[in-house]
Amino acid sequence: SFSSLKFNVTHLVLHESEKGQLFLNEAFKIIVEEVLHKGTDAEEKVCEWREPESLALLLDLQLRDTGESQGRLLQRVRNVAKYSIKTSHPHFFNQQFGGVDYHSLAGRFLTEALNTNLFTYEVAPVFVLMETEVLKALRQLVGWTDGDGIFCPGGSTSNMYAMNLARYKLFPEVKTKGLWALPRLAIFSSPGSHYSVQKGASYLGFGTDKTSFLKDLDAKIELAKSQGFVPLLVSCTSGTTVLGSFDPLDCIADVCDKHQLWMHVDAAWGGSVLFSKQHRHLMKGVERAKSVSWNPHKMLLAGLQCSAFLLQDTTNLLKRCNCANASYLFQQDKFYDVNLDIGDKSVQCSRKVDCLKLWLMWKAVGSTGLEHRVDKAFLHVRYLLEQMKKRDGFQLVKFVNVCFWFIPPSLRGKEGNADYQDKLAKVAPVIKERMMKEGTMMVGYQPLGDLGNFFRVTVFSPHICHKDMDFFLDEIERLGKCL
Amino acid sequence: SFSSLKFNVTHLVLHESEKGQLFLNEAFKIIVEEVLHKGTDAEEKVCEWREPESLALLLDLQLRDTGESQGRLLQRVRNVAKYSIKTSHPHFFNQQFGGVDYHSLAGRFLTEALNTNLFTYEVAPVFVLMETEVLKALRQLVGWTDGDGIFCPGGSTSNMYAMNLARYKLFPEVKTKGLWALPRLAIFSSPGSHYSVQKGASYLGFGTDKTSFLKDLDAKIELAKSQGFVPLLVSCTSGTTVLGSFDPLDCIADVCDKHQLWMHVDAAWGGSVLFSKQHRHLMKGVERAKSVSWNPHKMLLAGLQCSAFLLQDTTNLLKRCNCANASYLFQQDKFYDVNLDIGDKSVQCSRKVDCLKLWLMWKAVGSTGLEHRVDKAFLHVRYLLEQMKKRDGFQLVKFVNVCFWFIPPSLRGKEGNADYQDKLAKVAPVIKERMMKEGTMMVGYQPLGDLGNFFRVTVFSPHICHKDMDFFLDEIERLGKCL
Repeated sequence: SFSSLKFNVTHLVLHESEKGQLFLNEAFKIIVEEVLHKGTDAEEKVCEWREPESLALLLDLQLRDTGESQGRLLQRVRNVAKYSIKTSHPHFFNQQFGGVDYHSLAGRFLTEALNTNLFTYEVAPVFVLMETEVLKALRQLVGWTDGDGIFCPGGSTSNMYAMNLARYKLFPEVKTKGLWALPRLAIFSSPGSHYSVQKGASYLGFGTDKTSFLKDLDAKIELAKSQGFVPLLVSCTSGTTVLGSFDPLDCIADVCDKHQLWMHVDAAWGGSVLFSKQHRHLMKGVERAKSVSWNPHKMLLAGLQCSAFLLQDTTNLLKRCNCANASYLFQQDKFYDVNLDIGDKSVQCSRKVDCLKLWLMWKAVGSTGLEHRVDKAFLHVRYLLEQMKKRDGFQLVKFVNVCFWFIPPSLRGKEGNADYQDKLAKVAPVIKERMMKEGTMMVGYQPLGDLGNFFRVTVFSPHICHKDMDFFLDEIERLGKCL
Repeated sequence: SFSSLKFNVTHLVLHESEKGQLFLNEAFKIIVEEVLHKGTDAEEKVCEWREPESLALLLDLQLRDTGESQGRLLQRVRNVAKYSIKTSHPHFFNQQFGGVDYHSLAGRFLTEALNTNLFTYEVAPVFVLMETEVLKALRQLVGWTDGDGIFCPGGSTSNMYAMNLARYKLFPEVKTKGLWALPRLAIFSSPGSHYSVQKGASYLGFGTDKTSFLKDLDAKIELAKSQGFVPLLVSCTSGTTVLGSFDPLDCIADVCDKHQLWMHVDAAWGGSVLFSKQHRHLMKGVERAKSVSWNPHKMLLAGLQCSAFLLQDTTNLLKRCNCANASYLFQQDKFYDVNLDIGDKSVQCSRKVDCLKLWLMWKAVGSTGLEHRVDKAFLHVRYLLEQMKKRDGFQLVKFVNVCFWFIPPSLRGKEGNADYQDKLAKVAPVIKERMMKEGTMMVGYQPLGDLGNFFRVTVFSPHICHKDMDFFLDEIERLGKCL
């Protein structure tokens, strides 16, 4: 094990980079021990809660003029690990990115060590080819034999790419003249769509007023037209964030065809069902979309971030829309095919390599292994639902995502009371506070429209077993029984 | 060392996660050997050039139904490392992100293992506090005692944040009503500004027509006003991408004050001079800006990506502009101070942790160590210039970035010839091709305006020594002597 003595001795003889590599070795051991061993052990805590003030004090975050000893720095590595949430812990039911895949993680370490910027073939030969291949394989699952795409820093950005491309395709002059040169445009998104559609509408200059439809898309489009708007794009969702609902893509595609609108599918959460013969029917019609966002960092455990933006277009629309032809990067007199310099398709300049982790994981388990992962996630959901039915106090809001209220004993049978909803809405925050302060598990809650706070439990990680889900239910009961 | 036998034996008895950890250990060894040892050894190649077709064949990129053996996968890890560019190699003079810092790299491995999404205190307690502290320390170097900020996926995104905030501050209704509700806006950027200003103007709906000024900012602003535009923002540059020029910030600030425009400083490349007592004068006046983009992943070696967007504002403008108040993530009835849930300041939802690598590196060497790094970069530049003067055929275009033409013997003294410029412009691409195919080093070239192709050599990595720079010059001469 690491000793400060060792460093005191070696300090005199080791080269700067040898010292650095020694530090990296020791840090790697701590990462394995704290994050990967203890951090995935169901007997250990999922979080080590501290109030912000005491955590800040404990971490001694302040940055100073002088450097610190290697021993002190390793203690810092250990502390950061200790007080961070263990998102790969089997009791982390809180969000859609829990769980760890070791092949992906090896790919991520390699990505970090190589420190590659994915914009030209000369600087990223392996990853230009690899990203192209991975995008092709994802597109094939969508049902497209050809097309385009790019990895983006998150699903929100992917969704914004769709909006940007849709308006450029219809009005290419927007690139030089801006939105003022265009008629007012209307964007439509289905109920439960991710908030990034709103953020994107604001960020890209559309404004958020003209977004959203309920079940009456066709009527809403006609209304917008009658008000002088040009309808541009419909963003539908495969796997809504809270409820996990899948929009009827074929029906929406019919309406989009009728009005010639760009159909975008935000499948950040749900896209992975395309791997499953059993469940891919949930996205029937996706091949009729113009573009799809899909985050393998969610259900497939590829690791943050891995978000693919897929495009049916074969006319180089992505590059035409986003290119700026920077002559210091995208020179045209290079000695290889400059079409391999894919960076100008992006609105970023520096762009991280997000394909290697997915590619290595995919190579490791095959499409069949990823299919099993998706199928297992659905089995987990079924198991959890069955167990809830057997217990008192668990009231389902909705699945595919398992959303439920826990009704504490004191509220059972009181549904008729005037203050029932108010009291019920206060249950989840209290249970959440208790579980975090004890560190036993984490699960998210939220209100939705008229519905008061309910839990949303994500159980897709293949490392979760029945025992973990039983623990989850027991723990909700234990923490909520005297409310 | 790893043997396939070992895996065949252990396969039967090891748990899935133990197998995974074993794989990770072996992959780590390969990463250290191939990327960190061989990849930084001046005696080894900086790249192992292959034509795209043969590289694709060699890597066997195709994704299939069935998974592969651990031994085969480790061979893949080795191949990805082997055929990737060694961006930490002392002969990688190609771009502004070369070089490796082992403390930063340890922070990046820890970041990947923790797989944290930086949006709420409940999920990212350590990193919410850490990002806040790092941004504060960077702002202090700018000269601000208070303010706001966020880490973005690259400097381009940071620059776009500035544009988005400037228009929201002046016309908050843009968020709901879009640009159509606003007068036409004009954006100004100085010569040599990064192409992301153009990309941002297009992406955010402004259009690219109304961007750019030469030396006559005041007159350009008056002209825009007379044409019915509302001048909005001036984007100036501290360290232009190609030439490394620093705009006179104080002069530009005077004009911005006069017209009440938002002054943004794109210091993605140059910002790190703020650490240096000797060189921070290059950014005199930066404290008068409203916002600054600064990429510690460049001169400071923090690793891709580490891009800070810094803001002087103390009115919560960033959050008001970008928030969507998603109730599944940013619940207001949490048991801790919800102002710690900083994610709604971002236009992303999932957001990577980019602060840890910088924080750990900063803790390791202190502000003084980072100052030395910057000072050393400037010494490297001076050394290279001195050596060039002593040799024939090296003609300087410009420094801080060392930009130069190599005049091969056959062209020397022929400056008067009609085809001189054409012939000179063809020199750099050929030398580049030769160095990459031999794998001895990498350096970028580009044309600029009327100037034909010239080399831009970046020598800021503290691991580069005189010998490496001598090698660089020798190699240019060797590869170009018979042109």
